Amino acid sequence: MQDLESQWQALSRGVEQIVPEEEFRKKLARSIREDRPLRVKYGIDPTGIDVHLGHTVPLRKLRQFQDLGHTAVIIIGNYTALVGDPSGRDETRASLTEAQVEANAKDYLRQVGRIIDLDRAEVHHNGDWFAKWSFLDVLNLTRHMTLGQISAREDFAKRIAAEKPVYLHECLYPLMQGWDSVEIRADVELGGTEQLFSLLVARDLQQSRGQEPQVAMTMPILVGTDGVRRMGKSLGNYIGVAESAENQFGKVMSIPDEPMRQYFTLLTDLPMDEVQGLLSSGQNPREVKDVLGRAIVAQYHGQEAADRAAGEFRRRAAGEDPEEIPDAPLDAGKLDAEGKIPAPILLKELGLEESTSNARRVIAQGGFNVGPRREVINDPRAQVLVSDGLVVRVGKRKIVRIRLA
Amino acid sequence: MQDLESQWQALSRGVEQIVPEEEFRKKLARSIREDRPLRVKYGIDPTGIDVHLGHTVPLRKLRQFQDLGHTAVIIIGNYTALVGDPSGRDETRASLTEAQVEANAKDYLRQVGRIIDLDRAEVHHNGDWFAKWSFLDVLNLTRHMTLGQISAREDFAKRIAAEKPVYLHECLYPLMQGWDSVEIRADVELGGTEQLFSLLVARDLQQSRGQEPQVAMTMPILVGTDGVRRMGKSLGNYIGVAESAENQFGKVMSIPDEPMRQYFTLLTDLPMDEVQGLLSSGQNPREVKDVLGRAIVAQYHGQEAADRAAGEFRRRAAGEDPEEIPDAPLDAGKLDAEGKIPAPILLKELGLEESTSNARRVIAQGGFNVGPRREVINDPRAQVLVSDGLVVRVGKRKIVRIRLA
Repeated sequence: MQDLESQWQALSRGVEQIVPEEEFRKKLARSIREDRPLRVKYGIDPTGIDVHLGHTVPLRKLRQFQDLGHTAVIIIGNYTALVGDPSGRDETRASLTEAQVEANAKDYLRQVGRIIDLDRAEVHHNGDWFAKWSFLDVLNLTRHMTLGQISAREDFAKRIAAEKPVYLHECLYPLMQGWDSVEIRADVELGGTEQLFSLLVARDLQQSRGQEPQVAMTMPILVGTDGVRRMGKSLGNYIGVAESAENQFGKVMSIPDEPMRQYFTLLTDLPMDEVQGLLSSGQNPREVKDVLGRAIVAQYHGQEAADRAAGEFRRRAAGEDPEEIPDAPLDAGKLDAEGKIPAPILLKELGLEESTSNARRVIAQGGFNVGPRREVINDPRAQVLVSDGLVVRVGKRKIVRIRLA
Repeated sequence: MQDLESQWQALSRGVEQIVPEEEFRKKLARSIREDRPLRVKYGIDPTGIDVHLGHTVPLRKLRQFQDLGHTAVIIIGNYTALVGDPSGRDETRASLTEAQVEANAKDYLRQVGRIIDLDRAEVHHNGDWFAKWSFLDVLNLTRHMTLGQISAREDFAKRIAAEKPVYLHECLYPLMQGWDSVEIRADVELGGTEQLFSLLVARDLQQSRGQEPQVAMTMPILVGTDGVRRMGKSLGNYIGVAESAENQFGKVMSIPDEPMRQYFTLLTDLPMDEVQGLLSSGQNPREVKDVLGRAIVAQYHGQEAADRAAGEFRRRAAGEDPEEIPDAPLDAGKLDAEGKIPAPILLKELGLEESTSNARRVIAQGGFNVGPRREVINDPRAQVLVSDGLVVRVGKRKIVRIRLA
């Protein structure tokens, strides 16, 4: 195992809070001394999420623990999901059926496998223990929390202040999450900043069962591509881990300059002194984002695809055609005796516009050009002379090479 | 069945609230029309209580329902008791073991049998259903209440205001009590005034299960013999149903005048116009309390014992010996040749004082007299001439007739 200081450096990178920090140092030191991996818990809420870079922030931290020889313990909150997670939501969330939960859990694990080494991780479902609980067990669990503690929880407090209902079953969620830590004897639990309350509930429960309490490690909320609000699917400011290399790279290039440091810190492994050098170099921010984009995309698509996406982006930004232009078949029978076809029909046949009326509008606006010299055709009634291999462009993004068939 | 108006008169007597009153009238009318008894629920919390007249207020109402042909449904909250009942308490109550709960339930039923006709009552234990519940069932139950509703509950609100903890498991209690109503399909539930919240929770749960909601009927809190605070064992201002006729009668005679109307209304079946007549007759309140005391004592000991207790009380108040003086054996060998015995030794031998030193003090204070002429002997060194049948008095209450043996 690496020594305490280098582990500390790696693990504390980008972290928002470690509570209590001193306990974490002690656990880490003992782990090294006794060559005993820390058990690092991360709870997954199988509610049908498309994993985006915001979700990867704690997952990447978990992977760092794995890479340092510690044990990742993933809890699939399949039973918890039947209640609904109030964390960071302003409304009571609908609960799911067991079948939905199971399907979501599988899907989520598949996505998470892009970040975590699942072969080396422990995966538990909290239904394995909670499904066996009696009402009395629940009552004994609920003794550990007061209305006052619950009402002070940040997201609940907000809803109470806004006179929105907080249902009693939602109050059970942090206790359930806390009990998961007892079951798997967690040393550390990772979570978003809004999870701190639940992560600390676990400490009380562990102590009540004679266990050493876990340390809570919270990660900051990643800002979205708008640079303003938290990354989220519904806000349209997210970068999904399943998106194409081109989309991911393009979205990284679109972020404002301000969040670059956060993205480097939380989403890449670039040493922090290199990051500092890049950010203070006076380089054009576009160049710095290019480094950032390649580093992020490479994690999900490999370095080659990342470099290719960067190249494509550059060419497109320079107004050049991409390196590889997709072929589009065209039935030669659609051409007249001179090899011509009306422009709007051509665009529709090639699948570049959905209708000839749309195509006419785009053409009239000057958005259509053909051939190596980018000859603009802006008369919707024009006849286009087509030969095999002709490159056709619509707007900035759509480009195909005609293959006569 | 009696007609609507006479049932209404009997059942609404002394009641604090019927919520909603109009629904109760409708249920009652339908019950008469269809000759279908109402199912009247009363929950018993088996926490080891000595039943006193305060507890009998809702129990007597339940008995009135029985006497009108309705069905008393008693719920033994054996499962609920494992949580603890926060109602009307300022502190979190310790929960009980299952064995304690079972013993308490039996004991409570035995006591309650003095008021309810148990042969005609349904008795259920809520453990019969709750013991089978899963965690998920609990979660589904807790969906029906918000933190806001719970915090508004009067006793919880008081504790929150006083910054005393309200534990989450306590919040489950009203939901459990409410669910009991679903299980037994209650038409009416009886409770103390502080129970109104729980009685109304049941309505929501019943409606969520497609049942007609029950009507809540709350009874006022009986004031104790001090005329000030609620009757309670710890306050020493109670009259227990298991106490002797003499004790019960004496305690009724000791109450202030003000609560007489409440006692007549809630603790006797005297028609209200007779009560009104008694209270406005200008009679000495002692005479009115005599009627009250006999009416109450007769319920637990029979009319004869009640009249006897009243007679004894009267005689004692007039300074007369009671009608029946208990015999006390005395070994004739303790007397000297002249038939005399030192006064302190006599009192100890008769069991009237625990020690001769106590006896000496009482004698010196003039608390000892003998014979039909109540000859006071106040010299602790005096020798008392004893003959068979001699009546000996110590203080106001202790009196025996010596039987030489």
